[in-house]
Amino acid sequence: MSMIVNRRDVDFYLDEMFDLSELLASERYGDHDRDSITAILDLAQQIAEEAFLPCAAELDECEPVFEDGKAITPAVLKTCLETYVQAGLPTATFDAAHGGMQLPILVANFMQGMFQAANAPAVGYVFLTQSNAHMLQACGSQALCDRFLAPLIEGRWFGTMCLSEPHAGSSLSDIRCMAEPKGDGAYKLTGTKMWISGGEQDISENIVHMVLARTPDAPLGVKGISLFLVPKIRVEDDGSLGESNNIALAGLNHKMGQRGTTNTLLNFGEGGECLGYLVGEVNEGLKNMFHMMNEARIGVGMLATMSGLAGYLYSLDYARNRPQGRHPGDKDPNSPMLPIIEHADIRRLLMEQKVAVEGSLALLSYCSQLVDRQLIASDPEESQRLTLLLELLTPVAKSWPSEYTLEANKHAIQILGGYGYTREYPVERLYRDNRLNPIHEGSHGIHGLDLLGRKVNLAGGVTLAIFEEEMQPALEAAAGSESLAAMGEALTGIWKLAEHTIETVNQEADTVTRLSSATPFLDAFGHVVIAWLWLRQALIAQQALQNGAQADTDFYEGKVAACQFFYRYHLPQAAEKLRYVASQDRSVLDTQASWFTGQ
Amino acid sequence: MSMIVNRRDVDFYLDEMFDLSELLASERYGDHDRDSITAILDLAQQIAEEAFLPCAAELDECEPVFEDGKAITPAVLKTCLETYVQAGLPTATFDAAHGGMQLPILVANFMQGMFQAANAPAVGYVFLTQSNAHMLQACGSQALCDRFLAPLIEGRWFGTMCLSEPHAGSSLSDIRCMAEPKGDGAYKLTGTKMWISGGEQDISENIVHMVLARTPDAPLGVKGISLFLVPKIRVEDDGSLGESNNIALAGLNHKMGQRGTTNTLLNFGEGGECLGYLVGEVNEGLKNMFHMMNEARIGVGMLATMSGLAGYLYSLDYARNRPQGRHPGDKDPNSPMLPIIEHADIRRLLMEQKVAVEGSLALLSYCSQLVDRQLIASDPEESQRLTLLLELLTPVAKSWPSEYTLEANKHAIQILGGYGYTREYPVERLYRDNRLNPIHEGSHGIHGLDLLGRKVNLAGGVTLAIFEEEMQPALEAAAGSESLAAMGEALTGIWKLAEHTIETVNQEADTVTRLSSATPFLDAFGHVVIAWLWLRQALIAQQALQNGAQADTDFYEGKVAACQFFYRYHLPQAAEKLRYVASQDRSVLDTQASWFTGQ
Repeated sequence: MSMIVNRRDVDFYLDEMFDLSELLASERYGDHDRDSITAILDLAQQIAEEAFLPCAAELDECEPVFEDGKAITPAVLKTCLETYVQAGLPTATFDAAHGGMQLPILVANFMQGMFQAANAPAVGYVFLTQSNAHMLQACGSQALCDRFLAPLIEGRWFGTMCLSEPHAGSSLSDIRCMAEPKGDGAYKLTGTKMWISGGEQDISENIVHMVLARTPDAPLGVKGISLFLVPKIRVEDDGSLGESNNIALAGLNHKMGQRGTTNTLLNFGEGGECLGYLVGEVNEGLKNMFHMMNEARIGVGMLATMSGLAGYLYSLDYARNRPQGRHPGDKDPNSPMLPIIEHADIRRLLMEQKVAVEGSLALLSYCSQLVDRQLIASDPEESQRLTLLLELLTPVAKSWPSEYTLEANKHAIQILGGYGYTREYPVERLYRDNRLNPIHEGSHGIHGLDLLGRKVNLAGGVTLAIFEEEMQPALEAAAGSESLAAMGEALTGIWKLAEHTIETVNQEADTVTRLSSATPFLDAFGHVVIAWLWLRQALIAQQALQNGAQADTDFYEGKVAACQFFYRYHLPQAAEKLRYVASQDRSVLDTQASWFTGQ
Repeated sequence: MSMIVNRRDVDFYLDEMFDLSELLASERYGDHDRDSITAILDLAQQIAEEAFLPCAAELDECEPVFEDGKAITPAVLKTCLETYVQAGLPTATFDAAHGGMQLPILVANFMQGMFQAANAPAVGYVFLTQSNAHMLQACGSQALCDRFLAPLIEGRWFGTMCLSEPHAGSSLSDIRCMAEPKGDGAYKLTGTKMWISGGEQDISENIVHMVLARTPDAPLGVKGISLFLVPKIRVEDDGSLGESNNIALAGLNHKMGQRGTTNTLLNFGEGGECLGYLVGEVNEGLKNMFHMMNEARIGVGMLATMSGLAGYLYSLDYARNRPQGRHPGDKDPNSPMLPIIEHADIRRLLMEQKVAVEGSLALLSYCSQLVDRQLIASDPEESQRLTLLLELLTPVAKSWPSEYTLEANKHAIQILGGYGYTREYPVERLYRDNRLNPIHEGSHGIHGLDLLGRKVNLAGGVTLAIFEEEMQPALEAAAGSESLAAMGEALTGIWKLAEHTIETVNQEADTVTRLSSATPFLDAFGHVVIAWLWLRQALIAQQALQNGAQADTDFYEGKVAACQFFYRYHLPQAAEKLRYVASQDRSVLDTQASWFTGQ
């Protein structure tokens, strides 16, 4: 059994749930077929298992160090990233016209996910680079693309995103970095950026920073933010590397997890002039940056999910092989000890991981499929429909996996007991790595505000209706199924409750009050989305069982059981959260700062 | 504001909720008065803040190392434990006749808790020693006590508990360590013990291990386990130290957290004869060990709670001082940024911590008070009543804080955002430390089995009735209060639901099925207990507010608000968990090992 992927499950999403064959029939993806997709996934799995997985613990123990203003990374990191680049994997999502593989995003997501499961901090560098290059491609001038795009796509240079500053993380409207026009088209950058992943390293030949900054006359707030491309080393007209661009590494952050990815404090323009180049229009930086952020947000959801999957697979393997104890009631010390998977509570801990991880996989596959459908859509109305769905689901796709696969990693530790609490086993590392995900790319609370404050009311409420349409086929199919009808009804019920909650909340005039329980709403709405996706999985599985699944019987039985557990255990609790949100309780909001301790 | 304790809150539990004055009026505690108690708490707070807190991060980064068969601990650990011992604090809970302070357990719990909040891994050594000495006092022969007790009480020697072996953690019936009688009253110990906290160190002059082992003719299973005192260094008749007792340190475990406490693999009898001395009767080892385990379990609950409290206080302080963003709806970038405590979601994260931490503090104070009431009880019937209450609540007191203050530590990290994810701030360390608590001293799942399989049916169901009696005064008081009546009704309702759940589950004949949802029951039953304790806190607070609380108004308002939040947000979800348990859902239990991945 692989410790990073269940390929049977990947095939389930690709072929049975999200219709890869339809994507492969399109002009955009016509150069691929099912066999070539399998070959790419095989290759990726092999590299992930052989190059990335074995050094994950070492990379965690020997994190990059700060020496003489440089970030020195361990040799194993360089070796595995070199393998990744040499295999041509960084080009996965780029168009063939740019030398890319032009893979369906649905497939690329799994291809890259295997690396996230094997060694997330190592592969973080290339995924940031990919989002960076996508944004450059979408928003940058031809001249900038000509000079910077190819080395990014090839993975010779790495890319970053520079948003936060020490005093301004969630609050981007308060950033202070300055970009002064030099008159020759370039800008002079000054200021400090904080929390920059991969902001400095000794792996790639150059680093291409995407930096949010203000021009001298820019209006205050988010309307005065522009986006700049700022290379670590200046690039000459012929593409060769020139002088240092004066970006000083002021320090490395020492993180709880994700230790292999450097996380940096950067001073732009320290020691000399730092040149930057405008990407897109002046004062439209945040809009452009959202191009990268939305992709990164779904990427964070996948990152969390794959940490969850790695913990699930590891603890499942352990539970099958570790003998300990007997059934309660069996007091015969002569009877052999059972593998712990036979204990009800261990099964529950595994099932909790399964519903979180495979629910998240379904959600991220669905989002990837939406992106692919956008890319091949010819009908503008359909395209707009897909855009709205993605807008609605982005906060959920980032946040639900971040919250609930962290919980899954907690359960993986619990299954290994004392062993799980030691650094000799990977599960505690996965838990530490995963704890980042509710924080970066917009904190959990920020996504709650985005969902309840903006997304559910997008396009005058049409967005919710579109999502409801998406749920219809599953609801209809469930109604015709003896064993799944109750679940379909439960989903209809909680959907009505979610709509009622949104309507109730929308009636509140005061914005602060209206959004005061946005985070519980985010969590509960995520449960509704995941419940729909579990119902879809169960419907497919049940149909397959009725058709005689033979060798796959166990696989499909597992899908149906997981769906049942999610509906019976988790959904009623999510409904209570929605009722709480709808009640507009003020017990937290009215609590004054001095009430917490009385001081 | 102290980062390890809210003394106003401590006074609330001591004076307003758990009637310290009544304990001080007893003969047992008559030598103390309220002023001397305050002085002891002041002294402990000062030592905890000045000696233990400042080196907590260093102890985490520089964990003990294994060199030449020895465990080398950092100098800061030795220094702070020396301070603790020299102040006489190890004697807190021992009788004056043994040179102890004879403090009420209710007080000692808080006194020691401040050290747990400041630096839990450092103080772990002395708390294990205390439980060890209590057990020796209760079960050991006069001769053993004469030789070993005084240095343990004084803190010159440290003590351990040696239960687990590499192949047997939760399943104690399968331990293999052997104890062969030598004929002279001593036993020859052989075998390996795993996960032994403080099993080796270079701090105390000697180590006194309490070891579970089998005698040669012992029956199989738990009925054949005996308890032995096994010193690291042999002790002569005059109390002086003799030769090594041949306990080899085979290795140190490298833990996720709690790094300052060595955790060891020990080989008894490697390199020569290892002598042990029977404690109590042959084959009654587990019963005797429970003396230590029950104390340690409540100790783990307090350990978790204080990690939770330290995270809560730190993140509260941060939230009051960190400016970031503005209210949703306020788009004016000229307006000043708000301290983040003004954001609704940050308040929710603080409130979540408050209900978990102060709910746990109330529970552990209640358990401590029960122990004190036992110690001063003259009526055997009352004593039995208190014993049953403690039996019922021990799994809850260990498990609920372990689960929910870990969640609280997660929220503390979230409040600090990226900063919270770095090792420059204490909250990620507290989270790592706290992750141990659902694992050791009986895993979370084991306590579920203990509660639902045994404790709720103890004494033919009388135990539950006794607990219901304990709840009555609060329920009656709530019925007479306009603002708290709804909460009293909710508590009555969920209590009936809990009783119904137990009755339903009890009707199931098959033990495995009956206990298959024991862990969700444990969590939900814990919520019921905590709900009762929050209602008691709110009743006291409301009465005080009605009487004109003046300077304490904020403190009491906070108690009432927290109670409301717990009842409105958490209790309905706990009710759904109970309904799930009562439904006897088989979706997890029927899931076969091969269904999880289909392989």
